[in-house]
Amino acid sequence: MDCSIVLFSTLACIFSTCFELVKSYEYKEEYFHQKVDHFSFTKDISYKQRYLINASYWQPNGPIFFYTGNEGDIELFAENTGFMWDIAPEFNAMLLFAEHRYYGKSLPFGNDSYSNASTLGYLTAEQAMADFATLLTHLRRTTNGTEKSPVIAFGGSYGGMLAAWMRVKYPHIIQGAIAASAPVLQFKGVTPCSKFGRVVTKDYETQSPACANVIRKSWQAIENVTATDKGLEWLSNAWQLCKPLKSSDDKKRLKDWLSDVWTNLAMVDYPYPASFLAPLPANPVKEVCKKLKDDSLDGEELLRHLFRGLSVYTNYTQKTKCVDIRQAAEDTLGEKGWDFQACTEMVMPMCNDGKRDFFEPMKWNFSSYTEDCHKKFGVKPRLHWAEIEFGGKKLEASSNIVFSNGLLDPWSSGGVMSSISAKLPAVIIPEGAHHLDLRASDPADPPSVIKARKLEKYYIRTWIKMMKH
Amino acid sequence: MDCSIVLFSTLACIFSTCFELVKSYEYKEEYFHQKVDHFSFTKDISYKQRYLINASYWQPNGPIFFYTGNEGDIELFAENTGFMWDIAPEFNAMLLFAEHRYYGKSLPFGNDSYSNASTLGYLTAEQAMADFATLLTHLRRTTNGTEKSPVIAFGGSYGGMLAAWMRVKYPHIIQGAIAASAPVLQFKGVTPCSKFGRVVTKDYETQSPACANVIRKSWQAIENVTATDKGLEWLSNAWQLCKPLKSSDDKKRLKDWLSDVWTNLAMVDYPYPASFLAPLPANPVKEVCKKLKDDSLDGEELLRHLFRGLSVYTNYTQKTKCVDIRQAAEDTLGEKGWDFQACTEMVMPMCNDGKRDFFEPMKWNFSSYTEDCHKKFGVKPRLHWAEIEFGGKKLEASSNIVFSNGLLDPWSSGGVMSSISAKLPAVIIPEGAHHLDLRASDPADPPSVIKARKLEKYYIRTWIKMMKH
Repeated sequence: MDCSIVLFSTLACIFSTCFELVKSYEYKEEYFHQKVDHFSFTKDISYKQRYLINASYWQPNGPIFFYTGNEGDIELFAENTGFMWDIAPEFNAMLLFAEHRYYGKSLPFGNDSYSNASTLGYLTAEQAMADFATLLTHLRRTTNGTEKSPVIAFGGSYGGMLAAWMRVKYPHIIQGAIAASAPVLQFKGVTPCSKFGRVVTKDYETQSPACANVIRKSWQAIENVTATDKGLEWLSNAWQLCKPLKSSDDKKRLKDWLSDVWTNLAMVDYPYPASFLAPLPANPVKEVCKKLKDDSLDGEELLRHLFRGLSVYTNYTQKTKCVDIRQAAEDTLGEKGWDFQACTEMVMPMCNDGKRDFFEPMKWNFSSYTEDCHKKFGVKPRLHWAEIEFGGKKLEASSNIVFSNGLLDPWSSGGVMSSISAKLPAVIIPEGAHHLDLRASDPADPPSVIKARKLEKYYIRTWIKMMKH
Repeated sequence: MDCSIVLFSTLACIFSTCFELVKSYEYKEEYFHQKVDHFSFTKDISYKQRYLINASYWQPNGPIFFYTGNEGDIELFAENTGFMWDIAPEFNAMLLFAEHRYYGKSLPFGNDSYSNASTLGYLTAEQAMADFATLLTHLRRTTNGTEKSPVIAFGGSYGGMLAAWMRVKYPHIIQGAIAASAPVLQFKGVTPCSKFGRVVTKDYETQSPACANVIRKSWQAIENVTATDKGLEWLSNAWQLCKPLKSSDDKKRLKDWLSDVWTNLAMVDYPYPASFLAPLPANPVKEVCKKLKDDSLDGEELLRHLFRGLSVYTNYTQKTKCVDIRQAAEDTLGEKGWDFQACTEMVMPMCNDGKRDFFEPMKWNFSSYTEDCHKKFGVKPRLHWAEIEFGGKKLEASSNIVFSNGLLDPWSSGGVMSSISAKLPAVIIPEGAHHLDLRASDPADPPSVIKARKLEKYYIRTWIKMMKH
């Protein structure tokens, strides 16, 4: 899945979420030499992994708050994980944000990192986790006062998966983990492929069934209207597209972009105006649905109506001159990296039926998926591997992981939604979108996220105490 | 460390232990396609892993007893792990012995597997463990009645390390593990390098201090006697060496071989005659020490005296024509494989001072060790990696592992000798040598190993019950 609209120059995307990079926090940028391949000895190549560090709140033996970087520039995560910064002072915690290999400035083969499978092939979660384990061990060996420091992992989205799995696989290094909006169950045979789209749809239906219906009807309307060249031209003008639609490829791109927009809005349906992904008002899904009231329309009328809702996303600032539906500058690095991961280990099946969801019907077809991956990267997805390696839902032997999920967040479809044990609690945030709990506190925060953060602090304190005894 | 004497044609070595392959059990030999590299996507190569299976005692939902193959032909382990066979009927257990990659018939690149680091580089514990996890998942997916079967891992020596680590890293696949004589702590910074040699020495000192002293004095006696060519010739004759000593290299080889002999005897100091490593009487260390009584001797007299003790090892059958101290046929495959593993991940520092142990003083020198490894295999050891990856002694977050160790076994130096928690019990077998508990029951078994096996069965039963509830 891609981020489909680029409004800022310093924008990067995680899953479908894009963050604007505004520097609000202080940290030092450091580098550490890592093995490119931790699990074989065929070649001895190293690379420089970037990490960000702030020790200003830290006191000796105080904990290390460790962000398990995911698919993007680590500064994005440092800037958008305000929760860690908010609570570091009361915990006397050191803040450490480790960049995930192949993203940001942590490129194992420099400009050649993305050339082909022979360089890109080391982009796996296990290798990244081994980087984290090695970095932490090194820092604790070389920094006085950290020998006994408990390490608490934090991560959101894929980063949340990594935080949880770090505790599962390296419990001798990670004392506990806050895994926010981590779709650790979004795998074949664990979660039905239809679930994700249904959560998106529900967000809109909760605002108004008509709103969801307008979107559901739009796919056929686009087909009908754009059946002729004249229709293509009409739609290009009506929706103020920067580049007019010419072909059926363009039409497909438009529909993919639309799907992403509705999904993205659900993911970032925060209770306050936020300007990552796009500058958006508070509760953007509600705002969209305020404009999509009439599901009796059809054809051009329906599409014109839809555009009014769409504008909440494309033109909240009222400054957009035209709507750009092209993939972000021929794919940002982060997107290509995630594409590769989705084509190798992180195979998360998605499908829609257009009935219980509002998307265009689409079956999950693993053979065509495999074919696409092979064409793009020369690799074949390992459908069951993530479950074998990381355990799927069989996590009961582990401990000290909080799985938090917001009910507005489509990724909750693959999240741990009920506690696995007293030591593996699920924290549900009914009014929460994608890892809202990891964001800095805000006056508009709903009580549920305030409560969730309190609970997370309680668990962190418990884990720290466990280590001291 | 190597097995220094080859008396059988079907002999293979594990650590320093060599097993004779006598077929006593029934099993089917099967193969399974595995990825050569589970953790990267640079190449898509597969190989055939061998495993042995017996389902004759098994009933649907009954447990799977899974031997985590170590550095040798898997048939050796199937034949020498009688404990699994002894108890399978009462547990209605399926028996599964998975061969470790690069040993026996599981050669990822056929005859080229050992050519150089580019083929040999995939010989790591993590890759082998991923093989095990994948094989088990496949079998449980494709064999009716195994979906709910608990898997109990068994392993001795390095195989015991793998059994324990399988539970640490794949607790969703392995319900519990019997880790026999597993030196999981035999790593830099976890266990002093001098400990191993002291356990060996203690075995002899317990029989008689004079016995240990004879051995302690022998190194200098060898130096003195062999200072001249005539002395070399004398020793070659006196000890009936197959190939006379010519150079100082030969002298070094002789001393290495002697060290191995004393160590091997301590490892296989079983209470009944056994014929792996060499045909040996019951309690071979005791037998040796019966002959090494006079530590007042020096020079040739001492060496002649020593040879009488040595003969317990070299000529118990009274059929040996000459003593062969050369490394086993220029290294068996298994030995070369373990050498490689010791040169990469499994760096287990060893040192002697000749005072608290009876060996020739030898410092642990990591730079010369590294240099040797680089010369031999083109690789550099990763000194701290095993501890980072597998946790060293920080295993308290794990569960359901029995660590058993015999006090006669030198490898107990790196074993878990006291319970880490109620769920990670240490089982000590005072009269036990190297993984005696895993061997078939024998009338001469001391009460301590009978008790240990009972305890292990109790834990296995508990783990199986845990899974069912």
